[in-house]
Amino acid sequence: MSILVVGSVAMDSVETPFGRRKEILGGSATFFSITASFFNKVDLIATVGEDFPKRYVRLFKDRNIGIDGLTISKGKTFRWKGRYDFDLNTAHTISTHLNVFKDFDPHVPKDLRKPKLLFLANIDPDLQYNVLSQVKRPKLVACDSMNYWINTKRKSLERLLDKIDVLLLNDAEARQFSGESNLFKAARSIISYGPKAVVIKRGEHGVIYFSRQTHFVAPAYLLENIYDPTGAGDTFAGGMMGYLSRARKINEATIRKSIVYGSIMASFTVEDFSVNRLLEISAKDIKDRFDNFRRITKF
Amino acid sequence: MSILVVGSVAMDSVETPFGRRKEILGGSATFFSITASFFNKVDLIATVGEDFPKRYVRLFKDRNIGIDGLTISKGKTFRWKGRYDFDLNTAHTISTHLNVFKDFDPHVPKDLRKPKLLFLANIDPDLQYNVLSQVKRPKLVACDSMNYWINTKRKSLERLLDKIDVLLLNDAEARQFSGESNLFKAARSIISYGPKAVVIKRGEHGVIYFSRQTHFVAPAYLLENIYDPTGAGDTFAGGMMGYLSRARKINEATIRKSIVYGSIMASFTVEDFSVNRLLEISAKDIKDRFDNFRRITKF
Repeated sequence: MSILVVGSVAMDSVETPFGRRKEILGGSATFFSITASFFNKVDLIATVGEDFPKRYVRLFKDRNIGIDGLTISKGKTFRWKGRYDFDLNTAHTISTHLNVFKDFDPHVPKDLRKPKLLFLANIDPDLQYNVLSQVKRPKLVACDSMNYWINTKRKSLERLLDKIDVLLLNDAEARQFSGESNLFKAARSIISYGPKAVVIKRGEHGVIYFSRQTHFVAPAYLLENIYDPTGAGDTFAGGMMGYLSRARKINEATIRKSIVYGSIMASFTVEDFSVNRLLEISAKDIKDRFDNFRRITKF
Repeated sequence: MSILVVGSVAMDSVETPFGRRKEILGGSATFFSITASFFNKVDLIATVGEDFPKRYVRLFKDRNIGIDGLTISKGKTFRWKGRYDFDLNTAHTISTHLNVFKDFDPHVPKDLRKPKLLFLANIDPDLQYNVLSQVKRPKLVACDSMNYWINTKRKSLERLLDKIDVLLLNDAEARQFSGESNLFKAARSIISYGPKAVVIKRGEHGVIYFSRQTHFVAPAYLLENIYDPTGAGDTFAGGMMGYLSRARKINEATIRKSIVYGSIMASFTVEDFSVNRLLEISAKDIKDRFDNFRRITKF
């Protein structure tokens, strides 16, 4: 099943207790698409500036990522600068320069208007809605968002929620959107806006998937070394939707496995800066970690 | 397999965002033994004051809890007063009155000196050591401790660790004892002091069990309503050792199941104040929740 993602491609500067890196490849659509490409072809809708390094464009191409929807706009590429303290769960933004991303008005090329799976990475919910309106209704639409849009564009987000299948949020965002501190109640509230399911990401504490009928709790894959959590959430989404596209069926069993694959993929991303670790691993590494995940959670 | 526990029996006064209760039954040995009694006979070593309500003594008796080691000392029962904020993970102590507990010098009655399973609940590590010295080496010795003893009696704790099988700690205590923020490294450091395994309790985020060879990650049972987390850790230990005593074999498979039973039992305790919820439930409730735990974690 084909995968389409709309989101950001950015240049990040990141500081964690374990090091700092300047001008490295980042952005939600970057992490998502590189991850999903381990499972299937994925097409990317995003915009970058004229300064975007050609080698990254080649990287996408080499990874079977369709870039017909990647436009190069006049100006500079979106830049994000952030810092993590020893509590690696919270990103502290130092600066955001939207640059060409400010006028991003995603256009889905004609050939990409029938995706089976669509991921609306974290951008303005009105833009997410526009993208969704341009395509034939996919089999599954998943969507990410953040505190900023919950605060400033709640109505837009609500309108979008009524059209999607799965919302991905972290626990703080789920609580913020719903006004409920208990995650059961938060999930129920979110689902009442329309989506069939919500995935609540809890960083090092794993993920909970809530549908109308069931829920599924998955711990995070335990790591000895975490260098940079940037991109973990989008990597999770990439692993989840990548696996679903390969599984070809969307049901409770494949969704649960997809969530474990999402966690596994995120566990690689955080082991190095940017997408570095993802570029090192093989299908066998993914399979081995998945099998190990089974072993360490079995009882 | 017979179970022996040494610890505190106390009168608690607790305040949570969901209510307050005064002079309710508490104490580590209380939560442990009432929980373990669902699985097997358990004997209790503790001391209370002359003011300790007779109905609680009857409660222990009615629950198949041996009280030959429960002494009634001159003076008042140990009292703890605490408060939890909306983050129910951290207890804030308002006051501690040790009372008769100050001179607690646990003596194991002759008939109880051959327990198969021994739980040294959180008391002075020198007293834990003394109790261990009074019994024939049990098949399994598990031990709890806390930040206070790590700070003030580290050497005593180290001496004890060399003699036990399983140490139970929460994540903050594991980090404090080991000086390692990563839980893998913390566990490895703790195990280097002698125990075969360490169970790191993470409250609403579940439990990780580390042995020399393997580890096992169990999420917490997700609850809609949590009223009072007091006693969750000792309940966990009671469920864990209770199940092991019933299983009769101690191996990787039974230990993993015992950890899930520990989590399940703790999930009941936190649904009400004191041991109230434990007094309501039946073996079927436990079984149902265990089966549901399997369902919501399976993939």
